[in-house]
Amino acid sequence: VNLPFDAARLRGLMEEAGVDLVLATTKHNVQYLLGGYKFFFFGVMEAMGMSRYLPALGFPKSGPDDAFYIGDPMEVWQQEETGFWVPNVENRSRSSVTTAAVAAELIAARGLGNGTIAVELPFLPADTYQRLRELLPDCRIVDGVGVLEELRACKQPYELELIRAASEGIVASMLATLARAKPGMTTEAIADVLREEEQLRGLTFDYCLAATGRSLTRAPSQQEWRPGSSLSLDSGGTKNGYIGDLARMAVIGEPSALQRELLEEVDVVQQAARQAIQPGGSGGAIYEAAEAALRDLPHRSELDFEAHGVGLVSHEVPHLTGEGTWPYPGSHATRPLEPGMVLSVETTMRSAESGFVKLEDTLVVTEDGFEAYGDTARGWNVVAA
Amino acid sequence: VNLPFDAARLRGLMEEAGVDLVLATTKHNVQYLLGGYKFFFFGVMEAMGMSRYLPALGFPKSGPDDAFYIGDPMEVWQQEETGFWVPNVENRSRSSVTTAAVAAELIAARGLGNGTIAVELPFLPADTYQRLRELLPDCRIVDGVGVLEELRACKQPYELELIRAASEGIVASMLATLARAKPGMTTEAIADVLREEEQLRGLTFDYCLAATGRSLTRAPSQQEWRPGSSLSLDSGGTKNGYIGDLARMAVIGEPSALQRELLEEVDVVQQAARQAIQPGGSGGAIYEAAEAALRDLPHRSELDFEAHGVGLVSHEVPHLTGEGTWPYPGSHATRPLEPGMVLSVETTMRSAESGFVKLEDTLVVTEDGFEAYGDTARGWNVVAA
Repeated sequence: VNLPFDAARLRGLMEEAGVDLVLATTKHNVQYLLGGYKFFFFGVMEAMGMSRYLPALGFPKSGPDDAFYIGDPMEVWQQEETGFWVPNVENRSRSSVTTAAVAAELIAARGLGNGTIAVELPFLPADTYQRLRELLPDCRIVDGVGVLEELRACKQPYELELIRAASEGIVASMLATLARAKPGMTTEAIADVLREEEQLRGLTFDYCLAATGRSLTRAPSQQEWRPGSSLSLDSGGTKNGYIGDLARMAVIGEPSALQRELLEEVDVVQQAARQAIQPGGSGGAIYEAAEAALRDLPHRSELDFEAHGVGLVSHEVPHLTGEGTWPYPGSHATRPLEPGMVLSVETTMRSAESGFVKLEDTLVVTEDGFEAYGDTARGWNVVAA
Repeated sequence: VNLPFDAARLRGLMEEAGVDLVLATTKHNVQYLLGGYKFFFFGVMEAMGMSRYLPALGFPKSGPDDAFYIGDPMEVWQQEETGFWVPNVENRSRSSVTTAAVAAELIAARGLGNGTIAVELPFLPADTYQRLRELLPDCRIVDGVGVLEELRACKQPYELELIRAASEGIVASMLATLARAKPGMTTEAIADVLREEEQLRGLTFDYCLAATGRSLTRAPSQQEWRPGSSLSLDSGGTKNGYIGDLARMAVIGEPSALQRELLEEVDVVQQAARQAIQPGGSGGAIYEAAEAALRDLPHRSELDFEAHGVGLVSHEVPHLTGEGTWPYPGSHATRPLEPGMVLSVETTMRSAESGFVKLEDTLVVTEDGFEAYGDTARGWNVVAA
């Protein structure tokens, strides 16, 4: 069979982690292992009755011939329509505990009743975990989030096209929103228009952070966008699960000298960071380049820089710093970047005089450097007063 | 404080279940207990870094003064904007295990270190559960889904308005979709238009089941809608989390005599079921009325009837039969219905001659009977050939 992911890489990661079977249960990892398949009925909602929809994809070290999928009875329609690589499909679960029972049965049938099973601990329902523990008392159950993250690290061409479409769609939606914006609109109304524009472009809208005036609050609110004030828009949206996450600036009337200066400083940091993005480079090198550029800027005390991987999950591998808030194993602070990795690079200015100024860009590591997706409208976007 | 839910009822349900503290962590129950508040940034996505967003609302038997909320640091913006009844807010979690650690600390501080804690087992992350177990070794951790469902059974006026808006929005979206439909369109293209129309009306689109011709497959597909063929549309969408779930029929050109007859039979069952909906009635009485009507119909062997509660969750309390696939404690098969309960009532015809014919309606139990939401377009909706 032609698998939609690198099975040799997965088996290598499993070997390294001492894992006999990966049991993926999140929408993002199940979709990844199935090459984009997601059961449409539970594409958005997940609760049903007293329990929830819980698909599961089991991939054993012995390879794809022994893989299994556990789904809902209604999934057969879509599986027939789209094709499906998994040899053993069991569309007989309508609850989190049934998924556990079927998974335990299939794991035991593969002779892995005393093996090591990697699950997604921050997502697996507690009652699924309890039932697996009961039915497979001799198994070791470990966290597999790291293995699955590493597997997804270098994006395939179809994934890059989705990230490109999401990124371009978000910037186009921001420009369409600004074309509809009027002085005095609240940031809540602006965020509503942006949601509408993203949806019209076939994106799933995730969020819009919006700040205006001197306020550093970025929740959409009743605050009005006034002539002369800047507006920071920072939005996430997805195309078939793949995230676009970009930030752009706008102003009503021509920007002031100070506003121009602040956005230029932000861009100096962004451009410095970009130049460090290349195969064999590292997260550490990107941060060093950004911080070296930042050090000489007049408003350096109000500037912050961050960069992180992005794909099916916000802040995913490559993790470019080991000092983040989350526990980032396999940090790419020192490990080399590879072609196909996607980075979100963001510089934020919190200006006491002028408010929130930010650029966030999406950059893909290529064979000879980087490519930027949705890389337009990075200056001041002017709305008529 | 003025609570957005019936705290006395919650404390009674906790007493009955022997629960000292409810720890709600799902979007739907956290939103309910906070009167509609949902942190906008994680309104859609939940994964972040190697873990996920996990809010938690703790409500102890001692009452609201000892309640707590655990959120993300960014939530302070929205809490200030919207107001917040919870006295103890801890916006310091960015992962499922941190939420567990903060919750354990707050539970212990309330003297409940050896109490009974009700969590949402089909949703609580396994690593949150493990950490709670480690940090509160003397606690009993039980499933609280039933307690929270019972609490939500009778909808408040603001909830009914949202369900009404979702129901009306779905029917209006179906009519707008049919106005844009052309002979030969695929069910996939039709489902895409319906999503667009629901989103334009401010709904979150959940799914569209679509069947045409003699096919009983309801996944949107490459199948084309042809003159003379019926089209069944069955869609779920939400307004601030509250579900509308309705099904309507359409045909290209005038419906045939057989098509008229089939939809009339479906409606006979629907109307019979409605007449049994009243305070003090029961799920059993609704099913009996529907089945009595069905028994006399010419196509009875091709007809199926179902009814279930609906609100923040699909198939929620009242559970009108004890014979469903899910484990339905507190079934309303025999318990009396109460004003404010919302029912989804559905009759399905799987006709060998004519394909899939279905009506699904949303009905609210009122003081003196029932009220139907979005109760239009229930006959054949005709599209020009």
